[in-house]
Formats: sequence, structure tokens, C-alpha cells
Amino acid sequence: MRNIKLLIEYDGTDFCGWQRQENGPTIQAEIEGVLAKVLQENVSIIGAGRTDAGVHALGQVANFRTESSLGLRELRNALNGLLPEAIVVHDVQDVPPEFHARYSARERVYSYMITQTPSAIARRHSWYLGYSLQIDLMRWGAAAIIGVHDFESFCKANSDVDHHRCNVMAARWEQEGSRLKFTIRADRFLHGMVRAIVGTLVDVGRGYTPLDEFLGMLGKKDRREAGPAAPAKGLLLEEILY
Amino acid sequence: MRNIKLLIEYDGTDFCGWQRQENGPTIQAEIEGVLAKVLQENVSIIGAGRTDAGVHALGQVANFRTESSLGLRELRNALNGLLPEAIVVHDVQDVPPEFHARYSARERVYSYMITQTPSAIARRHSWYLGYSLQIDLMRWGAAAIIGVHDFESFCKANSDVDHHRCNVMAARWEQEGSRLKFTIRADRFLHGMVRAIVGTLVDVGRGYTPLDEFLGMLGKKDRREAGPAAPAKGLLLEEILY
Repeated sequence: MRNIKLLIEYDGTDFCGWQRQENGPTIQAEIEGVLAKVLQENVSIIGAGRTDAGVHALGQVANFRTESSLGLRELRNALNGLLPEAIVVHDVQDVPPEFHARYSARERVYSYMITQTPSAIARRHSWYLGYSLQIDLMRWGAAAIIGVHDFESFCKANSDVDHHRCNVMAARWEQEGSRLKFTIRADRFLHGMVRAIVGTLVDVGRGYTPLDEFLGMLGKKDRREAGPAAPAKGLLLEEILY
Repeated sequence: MRNIKLLIEYDGTDFCGWQRQENGPTIQAEIEGVLAKVLQENVSIIGAGRTDAGVHALGQVANFRTESSLGLRELRNALNGLLPEAIVVHDVQDVPPEFHARYSARERVYSYMITQTPSAIARRHSWYLGYSLQIDLMRWGAAAIIGVHDFESFCKANSDVDHHRCNVMAARWEQEGSRLKFTIRADRFLHGMVRAIVGTLVDVGRGYTPLDEFLGMLGKKDRREAGPAAPAKGLLLEEILY
């Protein structure tokens, strides 16, 4: 039995997220549907990160098992030929049997894009904020979450996880012209975590939430303590590291 | 009578180009429709460049005359509030009566984006080319069109113009990762000119058209001499200079 790893980019605008569901088209369902046609067998793919509706990915990783002997190049070309243009498979590799896209991942990198002037061209991939932001405060807040912390206050309620500790290795805001990009790297992310952090740091930046209140949220273990979630469309799964 | 200048960004994907027409929604018609509502009078706007269906703009300029005394800030906010998200008005200014978005323009800058790996996220704003390109040859070709030349071979037939001379001040290819960006600045552009130049230079880069044959096309004054037009979606009107 082969174990095959996919490296996937997608524009999540018109999908109901990664995970297969009844409500509408998802990335997982699209890829599984094409794999069933190409391989003539039913396959289930495992994604490294189950991105929500409207979230994008530059470097999503998935794996699946198959009896097929199809060449890797042929498989990639068949996938890209049959998938909608909003999903692109950049790489297809044979990996050892124990490789698991989700459990083998050591680190994940997400970014979040804010624009401070409205943008027609970037509108599907960024959050437009018309008010001024104290970026220094947002940078202090980002620096404060680096390290091992309990992120339950930044996690959607009813998430099925054993614990809420995440080890954040990097978190920073970079400004380029009217764009403000947040990048965060951690061993794991809880459901809705990046959007909750960004939404809350924006509240800090606009003066709604004092910085020390933000710092206090980390220990509270209650989603109601943190600020609103930033919209899905600004979020991008950048990379999964193994 | 006031003369008002607009600075406009748009994602041309879902429009039939700039110019008002019967076939479907256009940028000009959307803006005129909103101006009619806001100003309670019919206005015609003049665009600096009449971009084709699917072409985008970061810095399109237009002007119109009105009797309204509405403030500039209110006008901009009303426009952005009522226009579809794919059109954004970045600036609204009162300009002297003689200002004409098209005839007063001194220079125009267009860019064209090619990606050499398929991209889900950039697919609406770039042309994906899967084959390898000799970029050095394309750079030589770009350098050769700088100066005053007759571009009739790179102009759609039946274009209603007196002559086909354009003064190209800059033309260059820049590579960044798998992206290849062409930028061209000239006093004027003929209909379909940038897409014909890009399409032909790509034929040079892939070895279909020898460089000296490309150079010879400039004097031929016949569209059939040049290569195919590159797709609209990679083209971006960057800036109009007055």
C-alpha cells in the first residue's frame, strides 16, 4: 500500500472550508472526488489543517493511501487537470507508511493580511480596516504570546481537544505600504485561534482593549474573554513543517 | 460647473471592460449608475484608458462634470459604499475645467503578470505558463521597443486612430520566484498593444519566434505579423501620469 503526500494551494473564497460536509463544496471533497476518478478507487485524504470556510492555503499538506501504481507526475497532472482552478496541487510524493499529514506535523505557519486602504484586487484575501491602528501595541501583544501558553480563550468553544497549550515560536506584524501582515508559527493551532488572536490584537491596536487586558486573557481559559474573530478571508495557511 | 477627477482600482474579472455597453456590466456603467444616484443627475465619465474585459486597474483615472456641491469626502464615501467591492475609488479631487482624463494624460504604465507555476490564489490576476522561457531573449526584445516606434503590428485591426506611433519610455521584465512581471510605460497605448507585445515576447522566450523576427515586426504595420495576444487577466493598468 502506498502512502502519498500532496502539497496543495487553494483560494478558499468559494468553498465551505477544507473538511467534507453536506452544506456545499469543500477542498477535501473536491480532491477526493478527483482521486476517485483518477485512481478508480475510493480514497480518504487526511489534511494537516482543517481550514474554515473562506480561509486560503498556500501550503496545505494532505496524505492518502492507495493500491494504485500510477506515476507521481501523471497523478499531479491528472489532479490539476480535473480540479477547479481554485485548487492547485504543487507536489505529489511517496512517503513512508507512518507519515500522517496531521499528526506528523511539527510546526504550522499561518499569516493574516489586513489592508488599511480598501483594495478591489486584494479584497478576497485581506481584511480592510478603515481606522488607524497603533501598530506598536499590536507588536507588543504579538511578542507576548510567544512561548508555551494556554490559548483556550482564543479557541472556539466545544473544540474536541485534550488541552489548549500551544508553543508559539514566532508571532509578528509587518507593515508594507497600506498592508499589515501578521505571521504566526506554532506547534499546533486550536480551532479559530489565529482569527481570534488577530481580532483581539486589532481591538488592542484601535484602543478598545488595553494591552494588559490582552495579556490577561491568556490565563482566563474562556473564549468570551477575548475579542471578536477576524474574518476568514484574510487568513492563509502558509506552510506545514515536518 | 465642477470638474471632478477619480482615482479608481478595480478587479476586472467579472466585468465586460471599462466602457459602457449592452453586453453586460462595465466599470464605467457601474460608476455612472452610482453617481446618478448620489448626485441626482446624469453624468458621463471619461476614463483615461478603456481597458478590455477581464483587465484590472490599480490606478485608472476618470473625470466628470457636475453641478453638485457635494463634498469630496462625502462623494468618495458614497461611491465606495454603493459600488460593488470589485471597484474602489481611492481619491476624489476637484480639477481645473480643462482637465481631461484621457487627453491630458502624459504617460501610462501597464504591467503584465506571468506565473511559471500554477497558482490558485493569483489565478485571476496572472497568466500561467507551464513551459520554460529564455528570459534573456524576452529582455532583449523589451529593450528593443523602447523609443518611438510604429506599433501597428501590435494593435487590434480597425482601431480608430490617426497613427500608430508610441513613445515607449520603459519596458522591462522582472523575475521574482516563479513570477515574471512585465512593466511598460509609454505616452499612449494602442488597442490590445500590451497583450500583443507580451504574447509575442513569450513566443520569443519559448523559442517559437527568433528575436530578429520580433524586431522586424515593428516596421511591418500588420497585426498578423505579431504573435497571439496574452490573456486579459494578467494585465493591470498601474498608473496614469499627468
